[in-house]
Amino acid sequence: MPLDPVTLSADLIRCPSVTPDAEGALELLEGVLSGAGFACTRVDRNGVPNLFARWGAKGVRSFGFNGHVDVVPVGERSDWAHDPFGGEISDGMLWGRGAADMKTGVAAFVAAAVDFVTETPPEDGAVILTLTGDEEGPGLDGTRALLDWMKAGGEAMSVCLVGEPTCPEVLGDMIKIGRRGSVTFVVEAEGVQGHVAYPQRARNPLHALIALLAPLTATPVDHGTAHFDPSTLQVTTIDCGNAASNVVPAKARAVFNIRFNDAHDGAGLVEWVKSLAAAESARSGVRLSVTATISGESFVTPPGPFVDLVAAAVEAETGVTPELSTSGGTSDARFVKDHCPVLEFGLVGKTMHKVDECVEVAQIEALKAIYGRILRSYFG
Amino acid sequence: MPLDPVTLSADLIRCPSVTPDAEGALELLEGVLSGAGFACTRVDRNGVPNLFARWGAKGVRSFGFNGHVDVVPVGERSDWAHDPFGGEISDGMLWGRGAADMKTGVAAFVAAAVDFVTETPPEDGAVILTLTGDEEGPGLDGTRALLDWMKAGGEAMSVCLVGEPTCPEVLGDMIKIGRRGSVTFVVEAEGVQGHVAYPQRARNPLHALIALLAPLTATPVDHGTAHFDPSTLQVTTIDCGNAASNVVPAKARAVFNIRFNDAHDGAGLVEWVKSLAAAESARSGVRLSVTATISGESFVTPPGPFVDLVAAAVEAETGVTPELSTSGGTSDARFVKDHCPVLEFGLVGKTMHKVDECVEVAQIEALKAIYGRILRSYFG
Ligand SMILES: [Zn+2]
Ligand SMILES: [Zn+2]
Repeated sequence: MPLDPVTLSADLIRCPSVTPDAEGALELLEGVLSGAGFACTRVDRNGVPNLFARWGAKGVRSFGFNGHVDVVPVGERSDWAHDPFGGEISDGMLWGRGAADMKTGVAAFVAAAVDFVTETPPEDGAVILTLTGDEEGPGLDGTRALLDWMKAGGEAMSVCLVGEPTCPEVLGDMIKIGRRGSVTFVVEAEGVQGHVAYPQRARNPLHALIALLAPLTATPVDHGTAHFDPSTLQVTTIDCGNAASNVVPAKARAVFNIRFNDAHDGAGLVEWVKSLAAAESARSGVRLSVTATISGESFVTPPGPFVDLVAAAVEAETGVTPELSTSGGTSDARFVKDHCPVLEFGLVGKTMHKVDECVEVAQIEALKAIYGRILRSYFG
Repeated sequence: MPLDPVTLSADLIRCPSVTPDAEGALELLEGVLSGAGFACTRVDRNGVPNLFARWGAKGVRSFGFNGHVDVVPVGERSDWAHDPFGGEISDGMLWGRGAADMKTGVAAFVAAAVDFVTETPPEDGAVILTLTGDEEGPGLDGTRALLDWMKAGGEAMSVCLVGEPTCPEVLGDMIKIGRRGSVTFVVEAEGVQGHVAYPQRARNPLHALIALLAPLTATPVDHGTAHFDPSTLQVTTIDCGNAASNVVPAKARAVFNIRFNDAHDGAGLVEWVKSLAAAESARSGVRLSVTATISGESFVTPPGPFVDLVAAAVEAETGVTPELSTSGGTSDARFVKDHCPVLEFGLVGKTMHKVDECVEVAQIEALKAIYGRILRSYFG
């Protein structure tokens, strides 16, 4: 009897696995997978729970899946019309935290994989699941821990599909073939305090920050590449805290983030911003100290056999031709891309991280069908 | 016997008259002036002490003086090597809060005026002093109260000298013939919050503020006028308080101040900034609300007989040709200018508002001599 992905999704939602708590979700999946012949190993690190599951032999051609069972916090419980951890099904929808991001994606793949290895087991192939309890948090000991453990132990995925919700409007409308990189800059400006009536005796740190940021925010970082939209730059805060409107402040601070495409790498952007800051420092006499944190490099799995296979399965099941996109935020695909070719495909993510997160029950079933077709096609 | 301005200065310093406390300073002066035949009237308003003193008849040609006996706070008492309220004289210097700004200026003029009316009383002239206990504070009920009271009672100064410390380096090097105006702008920016990965769905209030402020801080407001340096604009704070480096904030706030010359008036600048903000709002979709506070209009007493008379007296006593300047911060001259032609001249202000405020004893005596020469020359 085929495994019902809707029931499994609802069971997962009933585990209140807000990062970094696993709260039974991985144990539930381990039970299901073990029962279908998957060899399961817990790869916890620094308190973060992770699960590695392989059906088939080690070292053979394998299809990999990556997903997370942790969810973001509920926010104001009273804003929800449905129990966020109730797994309630009504009006054709499954409600609760993780209904879109991404307990349903995990359940759909687990159900598809269990059916696949039960009904049409591949002769010389393996199916591997890498499931983590920390994707929404710092992510240092989640998928990274799984990949480190796999590398050390000679485990490998030949390709990997990440089951994040990728579709903007209808199931099937988008496959993510890459992601932009992300780098965050903190600029500390130190000038010379003074009276506004005598600005020639002061050096205004805010003026230096404005002069640095004006061209960065007025003109695009680039114009996009073959597979990417233009990189974007957003200033997220400027703070000074000077309450005296007749005083030029001594210090101010700005933070901005660049989401960058494959025309750049993090190190190059850091060098670029530091050179702009140095030039502004030299011009203004205001000391500008730049610290940068690269949280991910851009990457792309260019169109080719793996992309074609996934796109064909999506179109066959949904009738929708998926857009191949590199837009949006980061995901654990940024770690997997160093391990093997990686794509992302899942259901419609409109309600992710929101109040009354939900998904149509029919979408979960359709997603299982797509994942099943991908598996059969990959090993066919 | 001539009145000693140094002793009077020291006595005034011994009154700890930090704004808004008068602490005996005005009573001390009232005693000295009454004894020399000045008709004295206390013109207190809303708890602020003020003193009006006139020698001679009401309604005749009069020479006016304006000054304040309040001082700014001491700050850290332990940073002072001298008692800030001790009136100590050592090494040829008089030490204490108000030694530069401006108990010495008041004492020098009172001494000069008492000598003048005693030794060479003018036949058909009057000498008027307007002394306040709130110039360093809000200033709403200080010199303004005196001028309101005078207007209501038919009292008038034909010209007025403000005794603030005007000289940057040596006694005699600067007469202030006007002051710049001052207007402070608060700009509240309200955009649309969002995720930095999807900036097209957000409207960044910081980007709108940067776009508004970049041209204002990069190019001079003007290039100066016949009697004024260029107007200046200083951003004094920008605040947002967004701790999440992956979130485009909804709101941000900037404050800036313009010190403007006689090419502008406050209302015109407010209109200009509001039109720039409206244009940026229309461009960016970020709502920009501008509130403005005009704390003083620019004014100038152009070179002419009054300026020539004061400059000649300064040069005759010091051998220094005074620069006629409109630089620096605001003073109560901004109120007096609506009453009669006004100039400012006093001693070297280097230590004003600082720790161990002081002035050379010889400067106080020289300032009295200059003021005396101005009085004789005016009525001569
Ligand atoms: Zn997710
Ligand atoms: Zn003063």
